[in-house]
Amino acid sequence: MGLTHTDEGGKARMVDVTEKSVTERVAVAKGRVLMKKNTLSLVLANELKKGDVLGVARIAGIMAAKKTSELIPLCHPISITGIDVEFKTIKRPPAIDIIATARIASKTGVEMEALTAVSVSALTIYDMCKAVDKEMTLTDIRLEKKTGGKSGVFIRKRATVGSRKRA
Amino acid sequence: MGLTHTDEGGKARMVDVTEKSVTERVAVAKGRVLMKKNTLSLVLANELKKGDVLGVARIAGIMAAKKTSELIPLCHPISITGIDVEFKTIKRPPAIDIIATARIASKTGVEMEALTAVSVSALTIYDMCKAVDKEMTLTDIRLEKKTGGKSGVFIRKRATVGSRKRA
Amino acid sequence: MGLTHTDEGGKARMVDVTEKSVTERVAVAKGRVLMKKNTLSLVLANELKKGDVLGVARIAGIMAAKKTSELIPLCHPISITGIDVEFKTIKRPPAIDIIATARIASKTGVEMEALTAVSVSALTIYDMCKAVDKEMTLTDIRLEKKTGGKSGVFIRKRATVGSRKRA
Amino acid sequence: MGLTHTDEGGKARMVDVTEKSVTERVAVAKGRVLMKKNTLSLVLANELKKGDVLGVARIAGIMAAKKTSELIPLCHPISITGIDVEFKTIKRPPAIDIIATARIASKTGVEMEALTAVSVSALTIYDMCKAVDKEMTLTDIRLEKKTGGKSGVFIRKRATVGSRKRA
Amino acid sequence: MGLTHTDEGGKARMVDVTEKSVTERVAVAKGRVLMKKNTLSLVLANELKKGDVLGVARIAGIMAAKKTSELIPLCHPISITGIDVEFKTIKRPPAIDIIATARIASKTGVEMEALTAVSVSALTIYDMCKAVDKEMTLTDIRLEKKTGGKSGVFIRKRATVGSRKRA
Amino acid sequence: MGLTHTDEGGKARMVDVTEKSVTERVAVAKGRVLMKKNTLSLVLANELKKGDVLGVARIAGIMAAKKTSELIPLCHPISITGIDVEFKTIKRPPAIDIIATARIASKTGVEMEALTAVSVSALTIYDMCKAVDKEMTLTDIRLEKKTGGKSGVFIRKRATVGSRKRA
Repeated sequence: MGLTHTDEGGKARMVDVTEKSVTERVAVAKGRVLMKKNTLSLVLANELKKGDVLGVARIAGIMAAKKTSELIPLCHPISITGIDVEFKTIKRPPAIDIIATARIASKTGVEMEALTAVSVSALTIYDMCKAVDKEMTLTDIRLEKKTGGKSGVFIRKRATVGSRKRA
Repeated sequence: MGLTHTDEGGKARMVDVTEKSVTERVAVAKGRVLMKKNTLSLVLANELKKGDVLGVARIAGIMAAKKTSELIPLCHPISITGIDVEFKTIKRPPAIDIIATARIASKTGVEMEALTAVSVSALTIYDMCKAVDKEMTLTDIRLEKKTGGKSGVFIRKRATVGSRKRA
Repeated sequence: MGLTHTDEGGKARMVDVTEKSVTERVAVAKGRVLMKKNTLSLVLANELKKGDVLGVARIAGIMAAKKTSELIPLCHPISITGIDVEFKTIKRPPAIDIIATARIASKTGVEMEALTAVSVSALTIYDMCKAVDKEMTLTDIRLEKKTGGKSGVFIRKRATVGSRKRA
Repeated sequence: MGLTHTDEGGKARMVDVTEKSVTERVAVAKGRVLMKKNTLSLVLANELKKGDVLGVARIAGIMAAKKTSELIPLCHPISITGIDVEFKTIKRPPAIDIIATARIASKTGVEMEALTAVSVSALTIYDMCKAVDKEMTLTDIRLEKKTGGKSGVFIRKRATVGSRKRA
Repeated sequence: MGLTHTDEGGKARMVDVTEKSVTERVAVAKGRVLMKKNTLSLVLANELKKGDVLGVARIAGIMAAKKTSELIPLCHPISITGIDVEFKTIKRPPAIDIIATARIASKTGVEMEALTAVSVSALTIYDMCKAVDKEMTLTDIRLEKKTGGKSGVFIRKRATVGSRKRA
Repeated sequence: MGLTHTDEGGKARMVDVTEKSVTERVAVAKGRVLMKKNTLSLVLANELKKGDVLGVARIAGIMAAKKTSELIPLCHPISITGIDVEFKTIKRPPAIDIIATARIASKTGVEMEALTAVSVSALTIYDMCKAVDKEMTLTDIRLEKKTGGKSGVFIRKRATVGSRKRA
């Protein structure tokens, strides 16, 4: 199977989905922001006093999901009907995990919307904490699950393969 | 030192940079897209026939750098004067590395612009190859270097610390 | 009944409308720009010589309606099928009233589109007249009517309640 | 004095500010969202449990300030260097007040940025509470203060003049 | 037959398409960038070494098609399902022809999307070559063909009428 | 002299202008929309009754000028300080001429802003009249004049060279 986003000559094209049928589609993506222990403590302290760090990152992810087709050149514009962004604090290594779930009834999927939400939430956490920790790393951003559409269900086989193989 | 993007009550704020002086600033960020060996072969084959995969990813990164302050809620709008996005093919593990360099003479830095360029280039590679490889992972997105501004020069200590130390 | 745009923990979420049915929806919103008598005279004189003040404000409102989901973080992106913006001159107090009507066949309503159109038209009138009157006030921006959708017809009970109770 | 945003023929134009000098400018704008007592209680309860309603409205206002020149047709694009959005709860009448302060060193002022921040924060509060209260009203959106620029300092004479005098 | 985008008073309006039926629609637009012989040689040399000039122009056109309703005030927002941009080198006069094809199943047509793609691709070619040739001219941008919708099939009668009649 | 927007390998890059000096720059661009005689009559009749066709096209051009760097991938983001769009009615051939003048004090020029304003104004005229005339043609879009910057003054040699020489 070849690349779908380029033609026989290798040139970029937007895949024509005019004829595809509308089905309900869901995509779940994850990512992680590795940070110093002290940085994580500051984020948690901010949460304790009803602060805005993760709240801002969530909104940034949600708004970015709506902008996906503006950012990714060959992505079809779609009108997502649902997007959630959740955070989980990881102690070892010190990190914040981001999980985004995007939903739509459409001719194309919402994988890119979920991945974009995770990426921009992660960038926002970086931005809000960079004065204290410039070494934060955005990592393990990937699709976990996808349902709907002709290609059917996809569930990532080994959730941690990315990091493990590499280490 | 505390978080600068929240006030004493923990609420979000855009840091006031009105009084800061204009200096020349450069930021370099990197990231990696891990993929199957076969996916990398398809990208390289596309390059061989003058294809567009990496060309589209480069443009996506450059255009995203210009949109950074639209995406990151508390980022100051700035008019970048230069942005480059380069790619390096990695054989083991099969991956494409992305390096973005952003430049400006401004009151605030361009770290977020460089990081946003890397992230959106990576997302675009994912988008263009996802029909053949949904398990691609965006990883090790981080700031490598930064010059200019009051906080001075930052050079990431160990280039591979993110994955190794934390694994 | 509780807030729908936050979850049990009070965190922001975009309401999932994937399962909602598509119905024809209309929303009418109104607003008022209070100004000095002399300012209103200048706007009317501009109208007399085929000027652009209200024409620009109308276009600003129409274009803003199309941008609603970019502005309002948890608003669903929708493709409005109709939007009108009208103006009425009020003599006492000197003011311009703005009425926006938005239409769509969709899973969610167009109240926010109508309200956004009114608000941005009002801001545009302010911008175009601010050199002569910085004390202009945008006021009484509210939903007048809404049809379609599960919650059915809404008609604002007392059109002037906002201002009256307050005075 | 005539309108500056239209030419002698009444046609729209962007005022040419190329020759104007760069000065530090600050603008403060205010606005109010009138709501039912019960709606205000829900917002306050959300605040109590570290909820996101006002946090989302704040971010919406900040991001909208950065988009001002995209929304207001004849507004000059500028790169604001600071923007704050604050909220105050009013008991009688039940309402939330919004205060936005915008800063820049530039050739043109930031009144429209402050007013846009207030308006979009107010629209966001409406959006997040509209399931329980469709009769909310955005009101008294106006410039309170402005410093910098050739026209000098402006301070609104009577803070409540809008509603009172005109009622 | 009168203008549809203005009302009886001549004021702008967005045509209400809520009641129109969804049909499959295709539009083809063309345009030409006239340039010096030497400029065309440089573009062709860039193509030979797998360069990006036309690749960037293609992406610019595709992305602009997705932004059409943001650019053209009374254009309905739609979610295009396909867009292609192709280039043809013309030797005499030295020029690059641009052909864009847009597709959708929608209540309104995609003529403006195809024309916008051609225009922005042409502007991008200008931008990338302007250091060597400021006299380039964008010309003969027009709709060639359109199918779908109530008004049925349109095929431009004389492909070259624009330029010929004028000369 | 070679292309400046591609590197030695032919790859796209944004030209680094960090070191360039700020000078005052002006660019004038022109373009023409050819139409049927009857279409022109309708536009003129609309003007007579204070209609909005050309007013909307003017605003579209002004707003597009502000979006130039979002549309043209390698264009630097700049904050234009002035933009005018004028129209001239041409009787033979029936046409509307568009003249845009952009101004800035900046490190880079405003040619693309002026050309983008002309192009989007022209597309808007097409959109507003397309129900009566699908054969309209956008033509002769080009830079007429440019001052400021290192490359100095440019004045197009023969204003009509585009159409005449090539016919």
